[in-house]
Amino acid sequence: MIIDKVNDPIKVGVLGFGGLGQAAARILAPKGEMVWVAAADRKGYAYNGAGLNPDAVINAYNQGSVGYLEPDGTLSNNTIQDLVENHAVEGYFLALPNLPNTFMADVARQFIKSGWKGVLVDALKRTSAVEQLLELQTQLEQAGITYLTGCGATPGLLTAAAAVAAQSYAEIHSVKITFGVGIANWEGYRATIREDIAHMPGYDVETARAMTDEEVSALLDKTNGIIALENMEHADDIMLELAGICSRDRVTVGGVVDTRNPKKPLSTNVKITGRTFEGKISTHTFTLGDETSMAANVCGPAFGYLKAGVALQRRGMTGLFTAAEIMPQFVK
Amino acid sequence: MIIDKVNDPIKVGVLGFGGLGQAAARILAPKGEMVWVAAADRKGYAYNGAGLNPDAVINAYNQGSVGYLEPDGTLSNNTIQDLVENHAVEGYFLALPNLPNTFMADVARQFIKSGWKGVLVDALKRTSAVEQLLELQTQLEQAGITYLTGCGATPGLLTAAAAVAAQSYAEIHSVKITFGVGIANWEGYRATIREDIAHMPGYDVETARAMTDEEVSALLDKTNGIIALENMEHADDIMLELAGICSRDRVTVGGVVDTRNPKKPLSTNVKITGRTFEGKISTHTFTLGDETSMAANVCGPAFGYLKAGVALQRRGMTGLFTAAEIMPQFVK
Repeated sequence: MIIDKVNDPIKVGVLGFGGLGQAAARILAPKGEMVWVAAADRKGYAYNGAGLNPDAVINAYNQGSVGYLEPDGTLSNNTIQDLVENHAVEGYFLALPNLPNTFMADVARQFIKSGWKGVLVDALKRTSAVEQLLELQTQLEQAGITYLTGCGATPGLLTAAAAVAAQSYAEIHSVKITFGVGIANWEGYRATIREDIAHMPGYDVETARAMTDEEVSALLDKTNGIIALENMEHADDIMLELAGICSRDRVTVGGVVDTRNPKKPLSTNVKITGRTFEGKISTHTFTLGDETSMAANVCGPAFGYLKAGVALQRRGMTGLFTAAEIMPQFVK
Repeated sequence: MIIDKVNDPIKVGVLGFGGLGQAAARILAPKGEMVWVAAADRKGYAYNGAGLNPDAVINAYNQGSVGYLEPDGTLSNNTIQDLVENHAVEGYFLALPNLPNTFMADVARQFIKSGWKGVLVDALKRTSAVEQLLELQTQLEQAGITYLTGCGATPGLLTAAAAVAAQSYAEIHSVKITFGVGIANWEGYRATIREDIAHMPGYDVETARAMTDEEVSALLDKTNGIIALENMEHADDIMLELAGICSRDRVTVGGVVDTRNPKKPLSTNVKITGRTFEGKISTHTFTLGDETSMAANVCGPAFGYLKAGVALQRRGMTGLFTAAEIMPQFVK
């Protein structure tokens, strides 16, 4: 069995405390196999070895930083180093903005430098962000860090489903991911929406990141709240290529984000088309239930991969892994 | 990366050479990362370190045994021991009948006793067969054998898809597998069809196994070639339970086999229903393309798990694993 019996709950931290980080906290709170002990944002961190309370930490964050939490908060400009030096945390979910695109690799470098050993999981999106992490593969391995990248919904859940589905085929012709996201209020996901805008024609990561909230609102007014995206730079492609499933040009990602309606504009799905050994062309389809939110489909898998990462870490397997090569483990 | 660069092709054997074993041979033949070096049936075996030719081995089998293959065949009543003692094979796909239900565990015991170290993969079906293998967990581990069980279509491909899909949910309410199988000629899959009949009301594994071909034909005449099955004893349930996803009573397997038509009577699918952390009930669905055959959906995953098993074996990870806890690796 690769699945260990979890006797003591895994001590988990969440880095970044915007929409995703807060959802992560709410997902963790009722778990028995994990305990949420640490949260951090740019200005501080909170730690309680017995477990943090999501409402209290969100309340502190809304006052300016999780570091304001009484009595468990600490203001800091160097949260990763401070957390690592002072508190035992086995794994972190990096619920950080993907912008700038070098951010995740920078954070990985901080962990490498700190001397900490443990599990890191990200839910990054872009191919180029994974490419930067690939350069750190040896350093992560030597530092004793088990880093699982691309472990959200897409890449993540859908990439893993594609990797499973590919098994029926002798050759994969295409992997086509189409997502539908509906959110009632884009201001709950400021960073995520800017990442989506960065994929729109005429925008890039720098211009999207530099937009004020008013500029984002004005743009969404023009599109009636809809962001329609095609041929996005999404790391599903490099992850499936690294897993030996198909070359990255056979993987496409697109979708529709409705920023004014929690109902999904279409059902998120991945279609895996290939040729069987008998020469038949066919397509497997994995479709997410419409009632599942982006938060559920991103944070759920992230912690499933974190648990799997702990099993790898305990067996001395360190370095960089992707969601396409590891089976996530269900967290109770 | 858990996915190793395969420099030398993995030397693979196929035990059992009925419909599944023959399909396995055809799937392996064009692969670069694996070479099919050994085949065995009850009366003999064939081995060629440079690779066997499927047509030649099938031809020998149709004459009575793969052991008749010239010049690579050997007749034997003790094929496993003879193969293990004389030839280096890294992994075997056990394309064996599931009947009697103790068969797979008996074969595992023969490998344990032989002193061989390597990877074994089965595509067994019944919960009770996995339970017997679970009793061998420690012996397999100590013997240096990495045994992956339940690695066909269901259990296997669909179980793995369910394990991935479960990640979106805080709690899993049900996993419902419904398969459709269409085969032009049941006599190509004599053992498989008897296994299906064993699930029908009024039959069990012993009575089904004891049926003559004429009795099977007569039964199929009565049902117009259709075998409709509900609440089957299928190891998907114990595998998802062992993976911590849900208790086995929440997993149901049923389906329709048309033994007179290669077209599937319905699209094989698995529906994963659960509750998200926000309290929403929803269902993810994974559906196989109708053009994919049972052979493609069983043998493809089996070799994907065999490749993953070799990666585990090379890292010293031995013992019993299931398709729900390991990500299969694509074999080129």
